[in-house]
Amino acid sequence: MAVASRGTSLRTGVSARDVAEAAGVSRAAVSRAFTPGASIAPQTRAKVMKVADALGYQVNSLARGLIRAESGIVALIAAELATPYRSALLAALTERLQEAGKVAMVINTDRSDVSVERALRQAIGYRTEAAVFLSGMPAVSLAETCLRNRMQLVLINRDEERPGSVRIRLDDNAAGRTAFGALVAAGCLRPALATSKAGTPSLAGREQGFREAAREAGFAVIEEAVGMTSYETGLDLGTRLMSRAERPDGVFCTTDLIALGVMDAARHRFGVAVPRDLSVIGFDDVPQAAWESYLLTTFAQPVEAIADACVDWLATSKPATPEASLVTLPASLIWRGSVRGRG
Amino acid sequence: MAVASRGTSLRTGVSARDVAEAAGVSRAAVSRAFTPGASIAPQTRAKVMKVADALGYQVNSLARGLIRAESGIVALIAAELATPYRSALLAALTERLQEAGKVAMVINTDRSDVSVERALRQAIGYRTEAAVFLSGMPAVSLAETCLRNRMQLVLINRDEERPGSVRIRLDDNAAGRTAFGALVAAGCLRPALATSKAGTPSLAGREQGFREAAREAGFAVIEEAVGMTSYETGLDLGTRLMSRAERPDGVFCTTDLIALGVMDAARHRFGVAVPRDLSVIGFDDVPQAAWESYLLTTFAQPVEAIADACVDWLATSKPATPEASLVTLPASLIWRGSVRGRG
Repeated sequence: MAVASRGTSLRTGVSARDVAEAAGVSRAAVSRAFTPGASIAPQTRAKVMKVADALGYQVNSLARGLIRAESGIVALIAAELATPYRSALLAALTERLQEAGKVAMVINTDRSDVSVERALRQAIGYRTEAAVFLSGMPAVSLAETCLRNRMQLVLINRDEERPGSVRIRLDDNAAGRTAFGALVAAGCLRPALATSKAGTPSLAGREQGFREAAREAGFAVIEEAVGMTSYETGLDLGTRLMSRAERPDGVFCTTDLIALGVMDAARHRFGVAVPRDLSVIGFDDVPQAAWESYLLTTFAQPVEAIADACVDWLATSKPATPEASLVTLPASLIWRGSVRGRG
Repeated sequence: MAVASRGTSLRTGVSARDVAEAAGVSRAAVSRAFTPGASIAPQTRAKVMKVADALGYQVNSLARGLIRAESGIVALIAAELATPYRSALLAALTERLQEAGKVAMVINTDRSDVSVERALRQAIGYRTEAAVFLSGMPAVSLAETCLRNRMQLVLINRDEERPGSVRIRLDDNAAGRTAFGALVAAGCLRPALATSKAGTPSLAGREQGFREAAREAGFAVIEEAVGMTSYETGLDLGTRLMSRAERPDGVFCTTDLIALGVMDAARHRFGVAVPRDLSVIGFDDVPQAAWESYLLTTFAQPVEAIADACVDWLATSKPATPEASLVTLPASLIWRGSVRGRG
């Protein structure tokens, strides 16, 4: 312990004092050079870094973390990291956090077993400043563990309100309403809603907005809902919709993966032409939506704006403030070629 | 510092001794309960955890890290996190690392600027045990920084040999040869190679294997190479190939994203039928390759085996051993519907 408190790198045995002497600067200047945002002349920082590199010195963040309140570590807690939307959000968040001088730890909750809880405990042990929940679902106990440890909490597309946390969500209800209006404007007479049974707040909001707009316009909605949110579920939903005696002529799918599966089932299993016989609208604007086999009209997830809102809040909020904040972002409709008469 | 060395949580003020007293166990038992793999009766560990949770105690990994050589942190260094293959590898690695009692820090190298170097310095400051490079390219200076800090190094699909590191790669040359054989067996007379200009060792190996097999069989290869590795590059390559006076009748694309772009360009821009007029083989087996608009015949990236090899090596190798290790994994051909006469 004494070694670390003198600022010596345990790995290389080079101390901050060694660097200061070799660079001809004070010990305090070495410390400032390694502190993001600290006041130090650029040329002094450059000189210190050059000498530190040559000597193999690395600041000991562990020892520093014992003194400072902030570790610089932010835990990203997420499931389904390999899906297009989630991986885009992860990429944007890691980039923004790095720009803000922080580093991301990733806790993968796909297997909700003891290893997840253990990983979170480890992250907390490293004095993780904040946790960002990227998934709409479960892991409620994980959020509670984070709050008990006075971490800042960012909840993306989740329902719960917790003191000292921020929720970032989209106006999903408005998107559902817009989708209904777009299908009716395209001349659809038998509008359908295709969704999974995942039951996340995001999906529920989109479903509700679509149903409300349909009811107000006096339309009955054909509904299908099965399984988890995936392309395969979309294939299943498309097969169910196209097997009906009276086929829908327009469908709002609550995610792009579902929409792409519905399109493939309609086209390749039933010979139904999109958009001539079936208009399709998705949600997320994953890269595949723009591929020439699909050209899906869809709502864009404002991934960059979500990442910005997250990092801005982390930078400005105080830990464990009693108020919960809410940031609501719009999702705008991207017109491509899957709605009749548009695109 | 003295506080931490007594095992007190700085956040909650609850010490390991408090937990030991409340649980009626020794201080050492509390320590063992929080150490993955330590010898302790399951019911004792459960009792300690329950009491620790009730009191709000968290083991202080920072203080522990000053004493122990191993922090439990593994840095994953990657670009293009949102692409299907890279995100699948990241998901598999985070899951495996957690199972092995470790946590993953992610360093996003998309913007190769000062923020990347700073993030790596922070990770090193936390006494990161190991770094896993997921990208085939750049960041050579980052690997050197890791080695100088005596971290274990895992290099996935990279060329360089470094002491004390393991390289995990695929037999890309063999895959290129197999692809050529499959096209010729399907009756192709004008085989083509479509690739990017990324120049990674993986792509170079696939290209070389294909060319060698063609030369040995006495075939001239039609080649196109442009841009970065992406779907859009595939569209461009497909457009170039189909614009030729003598169109190829079979094409090996060095990644799936390229292959899916080539298929879309051929079908939607030139009305060329796949596989009737053009057989297509890809590489990676991303989820989209199995989508019903594509049904792409491709080589499977053994993502799970790569993650296993990585975590196994980290668990068994000693840091800073002089030997470099090499693990070569096969990539097997997955037959779907994009090669004439097969599937």
